[in-house]
Amino acid sequence: MSFVKNAWYVAGWSSDFGEALVPLTILSQTLVMFRASDGQIAALEDRCPHRQLPLSRGKRIGDTIQCGYHGMTFNGAGKCVRVPGQDNLPASAYVDAFSVHEAHGIVWVWMGDPAQADIAKIFHLEELGHPDWHLHHGDKLHIKANYLNVAENLVDPAHVSFVHPTTLGNAASENVPVHVKTSGEAIVAWRWIRDAEPIGFFKAFGGFTGNVDRWHYYYLHLPSTAVIDFGSADAAAKLDEDDRNQGVRIFALHFVTPVTEDYTIDHWAHLRNTALGDEAASAQMDKMFRIAFAEDKEILEAVHEEEQRPHKRKPIRIAIDKGPNVYRKRIRDLVEVEATEDLGEPVHPVFVQHD
Amino acid sequence: MSFVKNAWYVAGWSSDFGEALVPLTILSQTLVMFRASDGQIAALEDRCPHRQLPLSRGKRIGDTIQCGYHGMTFNGAGKCVRVPGQDNLPASAYVDAFSVHEAHGIVWVWMGDPAQADIAKIFHLEELGHPDWHLHHGDKLHIKANYLNVAENLVDPAHVSFVHPTTLGNAASENVPVHVKTSGEAIVAWRWIRDAEPIGFFKAFGGFTGNVDRWHYYYLHLPSTAVIDFGSADAAAKLDEDDRNQGVRIFALHFVTPVTEDYTIDHWAHLRNTALGDEAASAQMDKMFRIAFAEDKEILEAVHEEEQRPHKRKPIRIAIDKGPNVYRKRIRDLVEVEATEDLGEPVHPVFVQHD
Amino acid sequence: MSFVKNAWYVAGWSSDFGEALVPLTILSQTLVMFRASDGQIAALEDRCPHRQLPLSRGKRIGDTIQCGYHGMTFNGAGKCVRVPGQDNLPASAYVDAFSVHEAHGIVWVWMGDPAQADIAKIFHLEELGHPDWHLHHGDKLHIKANYLNVAENLVDPAHVSFVHPTTLGNAASENVPVHVKTSGEAIVAWRWIRDAEPIGFFKAFGGFTGNVDRWHYYYLHLPSTAVIDFGSADAAAKLDEDDRNQGVRIFALHFVTPVTEDYTIDHWAHLRNTALGDEAASAQMDKMFRIAFAEDKEILEAVHEEEQRPHKRKPIRIAIDKGPNVYRKRIRDLVEVEATEDLGEPVHPVFVQHD
Repeated sequence: MSFVKNAWYVAGWSSDFGEALVPLTILSQTLVMFRASDGQIAALEDRCPHRQLPLSRGKRIGDTIQCGYHGMTFNGAGKCVRVPGQDNLPASAYVDAFSVHEAHGIVWVWMGDPAQADIAKIFHLEELGHPDWHLHHGDKLHIKANYLNVAENLVDPAHVSFVHPTTLGNAASENVPVHVKTSGEAIVAWRWIRDAEPIGFFKAFGGFTGNVDRWHYYYLHLPSTAVIDFGSADAAAKLDEDDRNQGVRIFALHFVTPVTEDYTIDHWAHLRNTALGDEAASAQMDKMFRIAFAEDKEILEAVHEEEQRPHKRKPIRIAIDKGPNVYRKRIRDLVEVEATEDLGEPVHPVFVQHD
Repeated sequence: MSFVKNAWYVAGWSSDFGEALVPLTILSQTLVMFRASDGQIAALEDRCPHRQLPLSRGKRIGDTIQCGYHGMTFNGAGKCVRVPGQDNLPASAYVDAFSVHEAHGIVWVWMGDPAQADIAKIFHLEELGHPDWHLHHGDKLHIKANYLNVAENLVDPAHVSFVHPTTLGNAASENVPVHVKTSGEAIVAWRWIRDAEPIGFFKAFGGFTGNVDRWHYYYLHLPSTAVIDFGSADAAAKLDEDDRNQGVRIFALHFVTPVTEDYTIDHWAHLRNTALGDEAASAQMDKMFRIAFAEDKEILEAVHEEEQRPHKRKPIRIAIDKGPNVYRKRIRDLVEVEATEDLGEPVHPVFVQHD
Repeated sequence: MSFVKNAWYVAGWSSDFGEALVPLTILSQTLVMFRASDGQIAALEDRCPHRQLPLSRGKRIGDTIQCGYHGMTFNGAGKCVRVPGQDNLPASAYVDAFSVHEAHGIVWVWMGDPAQADIAKIFHLEELGHPDWHLHHGDKLHIKANYLNVAENLVDPAHVSFVHPTTLGNAASENVPVHVKTSGEAIVAWRWIRDAEPIGFFKAFGGFTGNVDRWHYYYLHLPSTAVIDFGSADAAAKLDEDDRNQGVRIFALHFVTPVTEDYTIDHWAHLRNTALGDEAASAQMDKMFRIAFAEDKEILEAVHEEEQRPHKRKPIRIAIDKGPNVYRKRIRDLVEVEATEDLGEPVHPVFVQHD
């Protein structure tokens, strides 16, 4: 098991949730989600405790879900409010409820111990909601691979020249050394390619005619949110590392959600300091991102498939793996801590104790 | 393993069996069946004892089956009558043969100890073959679910209001209590909905204009044959429970055959005391049954799929589960008895001892 | 495990290998193959030792393969020649390389201990390359079955009457006894059908009008190459066994390559002493072979599927099984010998010791 449970994960965009019952899976846990009449989103265990029908096969009755088999009915807190054919509501008649938080059009779910669900732990960037920055929700990339491989790829500048030669990289960067800083909260890998031809992305959006200085900073936050700060500026400006806002700057955001050990959804979006409010630019960028992410998907799925086959040798590690290595080590440590914590009783919503 | 072996199971309708070799599976045992020239149906183990080719891949030579690989040939009793390339017929050259009985167009196979195959144990109803009743063979419903879930559903009146709101149930019955009797040979669950609007089925076939008394009696016979006696009569008649023949009365018959632990075929038919010989009415009823059974199939397959996922809690049981609970208990007891019986040698046809 | 590793297996025809990277699997080992600029074919382990991407997903850079993920590059001997982002090439950065030999348009790969790879062990027939004989490469038959079943079928004349009644056999041969010789290097089974109607194949190619003497000699060479020498001559000629070249004679060649335990490729070709250089005759023969081999495929896949199901009895063996029985015994012996040999370190190319 490679999942960190005590964490907020992205379940989707705000626009995904309305009147309908939405089934989805996070950390192998099936959920049914819906937006209640007060606008709050509920997330419940998607299994009726009686005969195991997924509640998402039932129907909404007001702000409750009525099971499609025998009509047992649950409210948004997971509490059973009706058992057809009897008057009493047994204490065991509940489903787990999960905390949900919505911000900037992004819907987060806490998958671990409810007592530790703290919205202060949700990933945040000061540029989110800032008037000088434009946030654009991209799409969801479904990848048949373990999330660690997906996240690792997002702190790995070295693959860009080989996997994305026409969009995000080119041959100029193949041998440019990568810097890695692993001491902070996020793992960071970065490199500058100075005084080189702009890559496809900035030819399209930067309007550059001559050589540029280009940077790629990969920030990977535990358990699996990545920010890729990349941009370009005229080479003549000899931009300082801290003055990146003076160039054309984009934050590619990846909210990587483990679905199962073999399936991952990368919810991707971007923030930019250029073309604010320009939806045509957003659409064009999405198109280029889509090409690049499809390239990643192909590689990641092939790697995952190969990892399922028997090996006679351990994989080797090379210099460029520093960021990924530290990331995997940190995840292993978190998983181990959770495994050794005495979690006591299975997770259940608070009302059970109070009834 | 949840199968009761010492029992008769329905293999199909009489019309399914003729000259052709028919492969089918009951209790995970593959069978090849055909109708011999004397009209009797043979049922043999569908695997040549030589190189394991299913005999159903071979061809009929008179009343024998010639294997499609090397021509080894077996008669309807499973006895080998030819081994090409040699003169002697080794004692080990046989396939298991299963007892078959045909009645009312229904073909039964005994799946257990041949010595206990007694046609007196075959399910019977006095209305089968009675001149006041019309028998109509419906169809086969293939369900990706364990047969216990399928059979349990047939002694469960409570699901009707939620799963079949437009055909067999309506909201009027949601809270009407269910009676259950578990002491007899069959488990029975029933309820009367008095003085209410007729359900879709009886609007179509009863010609009722006002309110009706409606009954549903669910009889579940071990291991897995169900009779659902349902009907309606004018509410003004205040019909007594024992006078159901005075109303419009239908017996929905379900011959539930376990194929594997994950696959079940429900052979459904009906008997009725109205519209005798009226094939248009039969077709119309089939159409309505088909809608209802497709609703069951959808629920049962979703439940089965969910049951394959890991659980952290035991399913809860509620008041309406009395019939299903007793049913499962009785099956467990039968399976346990069979497991502890000393069955001795593997099942084989009688000729082996005599050779 | 049923594989004999220390053996040459056919990977394909010469025409299969050129500039492109060709992924294929032999004995469950994935390989990537390509033809280098000097015409030699390279065969490497198809997995980058770094992040496990199959190298066949990468691209050729001259006579090397550059991995599609991070650009690690390997030459045709499996030696790593570049690790982007670092100068040193670690000793562990290699992939296994496999010996390849090409002859008569057939490409062989040695799958075992490299030290034992000796081209003298490659299957050979004096008629290969002989001016009186015409070699025609047929096609590849993909069969979802273990290779032992496929190879066994090729030393089994008894199945022909039942599986191939319209092409290679007919009822006349059903009871003709089979001779078997198991003492030599190849296992041989054969029979002559004297003074009978010609089979479909020789009606088409022999131009016979009256009865013929027909022979079928099945030679099975370990581990899995079969030669089926079959032909016909006018019955009046009373042909001696050793004078088969005086008749119309065909060698059907089957190079059976185990892909996995459940998948096999039969590379089939033929040699003939008639219609030399006549490509129309080749095409017509291919068409007839295709019909017959599709019949085998259907049977072999059904047998394989049935073998995966639980059995309560051991398969029985009959007189015609002598050749197959000896074949399986010899394979078991070879596998056992390889399992008990101390293979020491995992297979790796020679350069590793020398670096």
